[in-house]
Parts: sequence; structure tokens; C-alpha cells
Amino acid sequence: MPNVRLVVEYCGEGFSGWQVQPDQRTVQGELHRALEMVTGEALALPVSAGRTDAGVSAKRQVVCCTLPRQDEALLRKIMVGVSSILKNEVSILRAEVVPEDFHPRYDALRKQYTYTIWNHPSPPALLYGRCKHVSAPLHVQAMQIQGESLLGEHDFTSFRGSRCGAKSPVRKLESFTVHHRGDEISLEFRGPGFLKQMVRNIVGTLLLYGADPKRTPSVKAILEARDRKMAGPTAEPWGLTLDWIEYKEGRL
Amino acid sequence: MPNVRLVVEYCGEGFSGWQVQPDQRTVQGELHRALEMVTGEALALPVSAGRTDAGVSAKRQVVCCTLPRQDEALLRKIMVGVSSILKNEVSILRAEVVPEDFHPRYDALRKQYTYTIWNHPSPPALLYGRCKHVSAPLHVQAMQIQGESLLGEHDFTSFRGSRCGAKSPVRKLESFTVHHRGDEISLEFRGPGFLKQMVRNIVGTLLLYGADPKRTPSVKAILEARDRKMAGPTAEPWGLTLDWIEYKEGRL
Repeated sequence: MPNVRLVVEYCGEGFSGWQVQPDQRTVQGELHRALEMVTGEALALPVSAGRTDAGVSAKRQVVCCTLPRQDEALLRKIMVGVSSILKNEVSILRAEVVPEDFHPRYDALRKQYTYTIWNHPSPPALLYGRCKHVSAPLHVQAMQIQGESLLGEHDFTSFRGSRCGAKSPVRKLESFTVHHRGDEISLEFRGPGFLKQMVRNIVGTLLLYGADPKRTPSVKAILEARDRKMAGPTAEPWGLTLDWIEYKEGRL
Repeated sequence: MPNVRLVVEYCGEGFSGWQVQPDQRTVQGELHRALEMVTGEALALPVSAGRTDAGVSAKRQVVCCTLPRQDEALLRKIMVGVSSILKNEVSILRAEVVPEDFHPRYDALRKQYTYTIWNHPSPPALLYGRCKHVSAPLHVQAMQIQGESLLGEHDFTSFRGSRCGAKSPVRKLESFTVHHRGDEISLEFRGPGFLKQMVRNIVGTLLLYGADPKRTPSVKAILEARDRKMAGPTAEPWGLTLDWIEYKEGRL
């Protein structure tokens, strides 16, 4: 039975995250339901490259599912049908048969996440529900300098979510870029993998330096302390978007 | 009584355009209602720099209203209160007292509009309701070349909406820029003023060349014909956003 890879876009607002949970509307659950409706078959749950938290959006999440038959017309039907069933809250941007041993999580080489902040006394209208609103002016340069001190391979225990199940707390932050256009600040994180809530915990910490650039200790010192209690709060999920995932054939 | 200038952001989705109409939810009507609630006074209708059509969004629309008294605390109350009353569909980004003779429309020097197209076989999830979806791949370069042929001052009768009340059909297109990032194409138009539906009529025409780059006659020939019937259809309003307006003191 063919292993089908989907590139999936979704808006986090209407979902309790990726992973299926009883009595919750989740992306995995809704996608599964829509795929079963389109194919007319009972299917196993689709598997994603990453289980985004409630409220987190994805521009190009990568998902695999096993379909009952190899059929180009069925792939096209999935691309059209899923968006329509899920009222454009989820869209399938690509659907293709991949080798049976392809796994969206284990084969991922690199991911990019962007965290969006609206920095203005008033809340946003167009970005509402898709960013974190910070009223007081942020020292963006301080956030950038502190964030850059995390580049490279480190033990990220200080920025690890309490329910993170990863074996090792060591991760590599390959790039960290700040984009500042008008009232919108976006923080872009790229690396081979991230711990649970690592990006949101880093953002929540960087925001403390955005409010007070002279704050001590530095983010580097917090990292080296390997103590979650020294870092800042977890930034709200609705500012976070999974941008893309890279595999050996390139970014999807 | 002070003339108060507001910079207003709104998402076009939930409104039947700017202008008050019986039994319709409009930005002007809702803003008027919210301003009366916050000030506790009967106020004249607010006046904007431009009457955006139903579905059109604005990042920085400029609006004036006459308030009963000059009061800094009231201005702050408006910034916080209007967003809250209008559930973040409208946000006041700036509120200040300006000279009595300032007029948001007559004093405007320049405006920028952006039209956003999602060019992918599947509809978008994150941009849904905020762009025009075009399934077939567009020849973006052809759209750019044809659009650039409209630069300068011309009689834009061919791209004028049927209910346009302007005295003269002559307008100046100062700049036209195409941004193409992944599946998103945005067309940016800048000039001292635009006729009713002019931007959407130009976009609807450029899309014909995006579909068929060898199409004849050229956009320049359509312009010179001064005949609305030769141009393309009016592109849907939900792709259009008013970005900013420039006055002698700069962009607001």
C-alpha cells in the first residue's frame, strides 16, 4: 500500500494542536476524517514531522499516510477535497507517493519556525490571533544580540518544555534572524530539530531583554545554567508558525 | 471642537465596505458606533481618506472625526476602547488632534495599495479570505511588464469603475512593483490618487496576461483605447489592501 506524503498548511486558531485527543478538534483528527471521506476507506492516522501545539500554525507541515491504492486521480481528489471538507482551515499543497521507508519526522534534516510579534500600543486587526501583541516598544537589537548568543550546538535544558520526552536536551540552533518591518517583528529559528516548546521558551526569554536590554544574567548564562526556572515564560502559541521542513531532496 | 485624526487598521472580511449603508455592517458605521460608546456623546460620522469597497482591508486608513473636547485621556481611551468594542476587527493605531482644516482625503499626497494573489493548485489556509486564489501557474514577468506600461499620467477610462464619480479620468501611477515569494504574488500600486475600482480593474486585466503572456492587444493599447469593455474583469475585493497614505508630514 503506497506511502503518500502531503505538504499541509493550516491555521492554528481553530485547533487544539496537531495530535489527536479525545473530544478535541485537532489537525491530525480533522485531516484523518477528511482523508477517510475523500478516499471512502478506513485509514490509519496520518503521521507528521512535528506535533505542533494548540494555536500554532504551519505553512508547510509534512505528513505521511498510507492509502489503499496508488492512484494519481485520488491524489488530485485529496488536494481538492480536503480543503473543501475542512473549510479552508487546512489545505493540502502537495500530495505524492514516496518510498515506503520515508518518514516525515526521522528523515527531516532541518526546520524553520517563525515567531511573530505585533509591537504597538493598540492590538492588530489583520494579524489578530496570529501574533503575540506587545504594547511597550521593544529593544529589538537587544533581542537579536541575546538570541544570537544561542547559535550553535548546546544543551538547551533551560528552554525545554516540562513535558518534553526527548532523550537528549542537546540541539543545534543553526540560524536566528530578526525581521523588523514597521510594527511587526518576526524571529526566525532554523535548525535540525527543536525540543518541545523550545522556540516559544526562547522567545519568552528574549522578550525580557526586549523590555529591558540591560537585564542580567545574559541569555548565554541562562543557557549554561541548564535550569528552566532561570529562563522566561513560554510565549503564547498563536505567534508561532512552522515555515518549512527540509529533506535530502530539498525544502518541501 | 477638535478635529481628531485616527490611523485605522481593519480586515475587510466582516464588513460591507467603508461607507455607511442601511442594514449593512460597515467600517464607518461600526467605528462611529464605537466612538460614540467610548466618548458617551453623539458624534458626526467619521470621514476617511478613501471609501474602501466591501471586502477590502486597510493597514493604515486615515480618518477624521470631531470630538466634543480636547482631551489626551480621551484619545488614549479611544485607542484602547474601539478595538475592544469592535472585537479586534478594527484597530486604532494612532489618535491625535490635528488643525481644524486638515482633511484626510483632500490633503492626501499619495497612497499605496497592494493586491495579493495565491498562485497554487490548492486554496490557501493562512491567507484564506485575504487574497485571490489562482490555480494555474501565472507568468509573473508578463504581468510585471504589462503593468509597468501603465506608469505615468494617463486617462484611465479603460480601468474606471462604472459608478466612479470623479470629474477627471486622468490619474498618475507613480510606481508598480511585483513581489513574488513562493506561492504568493503581490502587486503594489502607488500614486496620488486612484479612480473607483481602478486597481482591481488593472489587476483583473493583468491576470489575463499572467494566463497568456502573448495575449493581444497590450495593456498599453487597452489604456489608449479609453474603453472599459476592452479591459479585463474587476478582480475580487478580498485581495486588496490599502497600505498607507502620505501627507505633507510623511506616511501615516
